[in-house]
Amino acid sequence: MRIGFCQFNVAHSNIEANLKKITALLKNIEADLIVLPELCFSGYSFPSKEAVFPFADNSAQKEILNKLGIISKTKGIYLIAGIAEKEENRLYNSAIVIGPEGCIGKHRKINLPKGEKIFDRGKSLEIFKIGNVKIGIAICFESWFPESMRILMLRGAQIICCPMNFGGPWTPNVMKARSLENKVFTIMANRIGKEWIGSEEAEFRGESQIIDHGGNVLVKAAKEECVKIIDINPEEAKKKDNIVCEDMKYEMGLYKEYVKYTL
Amino acid sequence: MRIGFCQFNVAHSNIEANLKKITALLKNIEADLIVLPELCFSGYSFPSKEAVFPFADNSAQKEILNKLGIISKTKGIYLIAGIAEKEENRLYNSAIVIGPEGCIGKHRKINLPKGEKIFDRGKSLEIFKIGNVKIGIAICFESWFPESMRILMLRGAQIICCPMNFGGPWTPNVMKARSLENKVFTIMANRIGKEWIGSEEAEFRGESQIIDHGGNVLVKAAKEECVKIIDINPEEAKKKDNIVCEDMKYEMGLYKEYVKYTL
Repeated sequence: MRIGFCQFNVAHSNIEANLKKITALLKNIEADLIVLPELCFSGYSFPSKEAVFPFADNSAQKEILNKLGIISKTKGIYLIAGIAEKEENRLYNSAIVIGPEGCIGKHRKINLPKGEKIFDRGKSLEIFKIGNVKIGIAICFESWFPESMRILMLRGAQIICCPMNFGGPWTPNVMKARSLENKVFTIMANRIGKEWIGSEEAEFRGESQIIDHGGNVLVKAAKEECVKIIDINPEEAKKKDNIVCEDMKYEMGLYKEYVKYTL
Repeated sequence: MRIGFCQFNVAHSNIEANLKKITALLKNIEADLIVLPELCFSGYSFPSKEAVFPFADNSAQKEILNKLGIISKTKGIYLIAGIAEKEENRLYNSAIVIGPEGCIGKHRKINLPKGEKIFDRGKSLEIFKIGNVKIGIAICFESWFPESMRILMLRGAQIICCPMNFGGPWTPNVMKARSLENKVFTIMANRIGKEWIGSEEAEFRGESQIIDHGGNVLVKAAKEECVKIIDINPEEAKKKDNIVCEDMKYEMGLYKEYVKYTL
């Protein structure tokens, strides 16, 4: 299975420019699955929920789904992309899964950091199937919570796809731990470029990575616009060695006991 | 609070030599808490449970506790040290906590990797108090299970102490994630030197670290015999920002629901 990420400088408030950029970057790419960054059509930082609505409403979503659908259908690539999603008066930081057959699912970010309180919280962690391969999604800050990916792994995820918008140095290391502790492949797609977040100019870090089920980085981008792909065997992620099985069951037992008394 | 680790080449099957080494390394050290490596009196690799017993029985434990007790009392340092522990016909890979008032507790390793099946599995995760500071212990491979440290953090641990014996490149990164995701200080004490594990000669890596509650490495050793100390404010580990609170509760709820159906 050929998997990859597409890392680029997202244009703020300009869906058309971002769709053009993605189309150009993927032009000569052959792959089965490509992950795109978080909020990669709207941009990241907005002063209010209402300010995001024009880039998240039905007509915006339709424009994005149509264009990604064409790329997916033409090239036979599954795409996972971060998208702002308006539903009634709610706004989600979501990721959609697009295949040649159309949109096959989405995930709404559950763990919202302080700066993302304009978004509503997602409520579920689903598994999506691409052929026989089980895929999970964790969006950026969600990766900092080991529970999210543990649940995805326990539900059978072989590859966890992570649309991201991070600037700090921690997340690439966190993701190595996540792959290792769950024995899953992970694909991180971060963005590059700068944005004003309130009165501070923040720079996104790039450094997108594909990590194997042993916690080893297979591919890593610099701070550049690029697509990186690699061939993996997702069956490898079914071998859990001594990480899961009795050890996991014991730990989960402890955890279960603990949450019983605290929740 | 002044915390540190003592990293050295453990002599196999020679408690006296290891106690001498520790005494010499700590001679000029002033600190409140020092962590020593896993199994740092017996050595790591043994062909059978019975082969470890002479370095784990009552008389061996007494020799170790007496000597560490003197160091602790004389210098006012709390010591956490990896020790093989025989109880009836069971053998544990344990860590003891020694203070000027004597042995105040121990932790028996729960998650045993394939190569450690001569040990019996521990059954609990406790918190120990050094003054007003809450301390947890995770021994080497236990750090690869996010549940262990999550439970310790949820029980109030501000510093998690990790006696270790690792050779691979992964654990220093895993520990950065553990500190970050739980907002706790961690002290890793690995060993150096070589041992035959079956027919393979394995080398321990050193690279002991002290990591802050933000996942940043404060001190890191090379492959050397050394003691490294640093001053920290353990109160910082009580500030959980947006990592815990509502996010954690939500995640734990998901986890609870999941374990309900799988255990």
